[in-house]
Amino acid sequence: MRTIQFLASLWLLLHLAACVLGGAVPVQPVDDDDEEAMHPHLQSNPRTSERGSKAENTQDYWLSASKEHILEKLNFVRNTKRAKNIILFLGDGMGLATLAAARSYLGGEEKKLYFEKFPFTGLSKTYCVDKIVPDSASTSTSYLCGVKANYGTIGVSANVKRGDCQAMADKSNHVFSVGKWAMDAGKAAGLVTTTRVTHASPSGVYAHTADREWENNAVLEEACGDLAKDLDDIAVQLIHGEVGSKLKVMLGGGRRNFMDLEFYKNGRRTDGRNLVDEFEAMSDRNVYVKNRKKLLKVDPATTDRLLGLFAKSHLHYHEEQLADPENTEPTLEEMTQKAIEVLQTEENGYFLFVEGGKIDISHHDTMARIALDETAELSKAVKLARKMTSEEDTLIVVTSDHSHTFSLGGYQPRGSDIFGKAESSGTDDKPYLALSYANGKSFETYYDVMAHQRVDPTSLLADNADVAQLFPATAPLESETHGGEDVGVFASGPWAHIFTGVYEQNAIPHMLAFAACVGDGQTACD
Amino acid sequence: MRTIQFLASLWLLLHLAACVLGGAVPVQPVDDDDEEAMHPHLQSNPRTSERGSKAENTQDYWLSASKEHILEKLNFVRNTKRAKNIILFLGDGMGLATLAAARSYLGGEEKKLYFEKFPFTGLSKTYCVDKIVPDSASTSTSYLCGVKANYGTIGVSANVKRGDCQAMADKSNHVFSVGKWAMDAGKAAGLVTTTRVTHASPSGVYAHTADREWENNAVLEEACGDLAKDLDDIAVQLIHGEVGSKLKVMLGGGRRNFMDLEFYKNGRRTDGRNLVDEFEAMSDRNVYVKNRKKLLKVDPATTDRLLGLFAKSHLHYHEEQLADPENTEPTLEEMTQKAIEVLQTEENGYFLFVEGGKIDISHHDTMARIALDETAELSKAVKLARKMTSEEDTLIVVTSDHSHTFSLGGYQPRGSDIFGKAESSGTDDKPYLALSYANGKSFETYYDVMAHQRVDPTSLLADNADVAQLFPATAPLESETHGGEDVGVFASGPWAHIFTGVYEQNAIPHMLAFAACVGDGQTACD
Repeated sequence: MRTIQFLASLWLLLHLAACVLGGAVPVQPVDDDDEEAMHPHLQSNPRTSERGSKAENTQDYWLSASKEHILEKLNFVRNTKRAKNIILFLGDGMGLATLAAARSYLGGEEKKLYFEKFPFTGLSKTYCVDKIVPDSASTSTSYLCGVKANYGTIGVSANVKRGDCQAMADKSNHVFSVGKWAMDAGKAAGLVTTTRVTHASPSGVYAHTADREWENNAVLEEACGDLAKDLDDIAVQLIHGEVGSKLKVMLGGGRRNFMDLEFYKNGRRTDGRNLVDEFEAMSDRNVYVKNRKKLLKVDPATTDRLLGLFAKSHLHYHEEQLADPENTEPTLEEMTQKAIEVLQTEENGYFLFVEGGKIDISHHDTMARIALDETAELSKAVKLARKMTSEEDTLIVVTSDHSHTFSLGGYQPRGSDIFGKAESSGTDDKPYLALSYANGKSFETYYDVMAHQRVDPTSLLADNADVAQLFPATAPLESETHGGEDVGVFASGPWAHIFTGVYEQNAIPHMLAFAACVGDGQTACD
Repeated sequence: MRTIQFLASLWLLLHLAACVLGGAVPVQPVDDDDEEAMHPHLQSNPRTSERGSKAENTQDYWLSASKEHILEKLNFVRNTKRAKNIILFLGDGMGLATLAAARSYLGGEEKKLYFEKFPFTGLSKTYCVDKIVPDSASTSTSYLCGVKANYGTIGVSANVKRGDCQAMADKSNHVFSVGKWAMDAGKAAGLVTTTRVTHASPSGVYAHTADREWENNAVLEEACGDLAKDLDDIAVQLIHGEVGSKLKVMLGGGRRNFMDLEFYKNGRRTDGRNLVDEFEAMSDRNVYVKNRKKLLKVDPATTDRLLGLFAKSHLHYHEEQLADPENTEPTLEEMTQKAIEVLQTEENGYFLFVEGGKIDISHHDTMARIALDETAELSKAVKLARKMTSEEDTLIVVTSDHSHTFSLGGYQPRGSDIFGKAESSGTDDKPYLALSYANGKSFETYYDVMAHQRVDPTSLLADNADVAQLFPATAPLESETHGGEDVGVFASGPWAHIFTGVYEQNAIPHMLAFAACVGDGQTACD
């Protein structure tokens, strides 16, 4: 947290400097379809713009907008071609309140995130087999492998309880992802994330584990003892597993799980292995990159498989990257671009999973400002992917694994700062904020227990508020919990029209497979 | 509130008695399609059932469920016939967290509310012209008249600011509902609500007012003074207005706004008028009913127009009706049934608006138990409507006007009581509840300011908790605020497929009009 506060201060200074120098920090509207200049990626998201307009006072404005909407619906031709390529974007912890607040953050309620313009939407039911509100491991099994699982488990059916080493060893309990189904059908597959590549969401592409924590041999051995010798930790499964060893692109963070301390000062392995070396030794055309510059230089034509590990753990928040003059990490958009370039060399097409994983992490810390900025980053990556591909042959689906207890209330006037206070005050005559969480670590920040009353939340807002500012909570928890309501599904491309309705989350990969004619279920080619 | 607590105790006693007598209170699964016995309507919603199942542990369960889902999607034939009838259901304040929690309340996360089975879903953007988070008046103008308006105003464009008597008098600012468009095309129209028929949501069908509060002449005259003589209050507009005077069905509460004290002890009019008498005097075939028994006896064949006012203000909560042996109010389902029976006498078809209005009211009071029960009641009414009509010629759309700051968190085990505590505790070693609100009157209940600490929320839960129990809040407000995230749209019948995607709320009536070939926009008949 200290790092983030330092960087946040730095960010403020940079913005101030930019302001003095005449707006040297460029702003890029994410929802301007005509805007073609997509570089440089590493820039701040727009904060303010004229919101609403006088035209909204007239009937004509709303009538003609609705007419346009209906014409768009009617003119839309459903695409029933086979999907050559599939890209699944996941905003981790990105519920509908996050999306609505992100629109305000990006300049106004009347705007849409890029993927909100997709023609078809559905609602995904997120509960897992043993919990009403799920985690990112069980849901990853659901939206990638098509089977609901127990909390904390990945790539295994619910016959495997969290932490059950023996049940994990039984291969009949393993379930496989749409990434494998695609590779079995001759396509390439890859993953991109802003978290560790061994974290819960991306692991669903390739791993089978009774516990999401078993990312390296040390934690696995501590948990399973002797049984560990027959099991692989998640990092080993990425490099050597049946699915992981065939993935064409793996980009994200988490270097520490791939190397023993002997090779890397932050290494967490204790088995003397360097999985990055092992990856490179497998083929001359296996390419490993560890920073943004090297990533941008990767030549798809000479690269069979690409591994990028850009941080010891998760990548930093986009706001931290911006604030750090020595930043060496790529943005989600940059990783997505290179991933698509490399996957496009496979003429049979590809499956790509892209996770904006730090929406969830900032929400857990009740840092709403960052959560909305990370959501904007995801939107930019989706836009780039849609522009690099054709709607004719590439199905893009954007969804979330679960929501958070994050809410947007308080009847603020249009044009208000979404991070500011509601127009009215509480019965204690103190303001309250439009954004808040039902639980989390900010509880103590906002309750003045010595004075027997609430803290005025606006007293915690600086003129230029810290990006890491915490928002209120009802219950003190170290980490704010997930939310259990349905999340949105947004689809564009071949067979996108089957993604409407309310359905169980685990139907998603089966629908992807249907569109691409992969897997052993019914397909569009039958 | 005292009434509700008394009734809640009574309810508990009744249930206890039923239990002793061997389950004499029948339970009716709302999502059982084969279940045909729809009477009696006045019974409790199911509370518990076996949740989840062992089968969920297997891959096969999830794989075959997904296969079925895809087949259903593929076998679905889009209906592009003209919609003879349109029914628009509104769950006031019914956000996605309410829907997800209601499934658990009704027996399990794997279930769906009746309308969640509809084949097409969309997301409706709810902001109004002057507020980021809207109210039920501005949104009523949006989803009924197709034009976004200012907070607190109904049936007028945003040229009219809240409380502006002069701007309200200017008819060029008036906007009309899809109900009027339908009547202009020779169809019948009607409305049903559990609130006052002059409350914000139903008023959107027929009224034009600069302030939702102007339900009777007294409040209008107080606000507008001399200008009031050129203006009509909402009740007068219902009985004598251009649109109201033609409505075939008007069922709900709010008797007090129709009569002077002279005629009715709760009357709020001060102009010596009895609008109910005036309604009856207009025609021999105008029927007024004031209780459930009379409503059930109404003969559609001899009824031209039906007015039912079943309470002085809003109808009671369904749970209160159940608990009151002298209850004289109909359920939402019963009103919906009679409304459809009467409207079906019009051979050109009809438009019907049905509001479950007390979901919102209970949420404002942070009474989650009641909010979920009222949601279950709405689901029952939708089911009945779908069964009374044909998917071939009747478009049914279910949506909400806005959400609340209500959230469902805390990782409870499957099968837990959704009103109970999360599995883990806070950092203060006290439990917290899965359900909570970001703000509201329960703040003081849950924060023990004298003891400098939180109250253990479970200490407030009786063994059989009061249905009116308050859930936690972060900020003390008299009334919990609305939430600003998108709400769901669920559609079934002709042209239901155009209701997918993310769109502005005001597009909804234009899409309804398109399907039914009414209004002056583009239609399916062009």
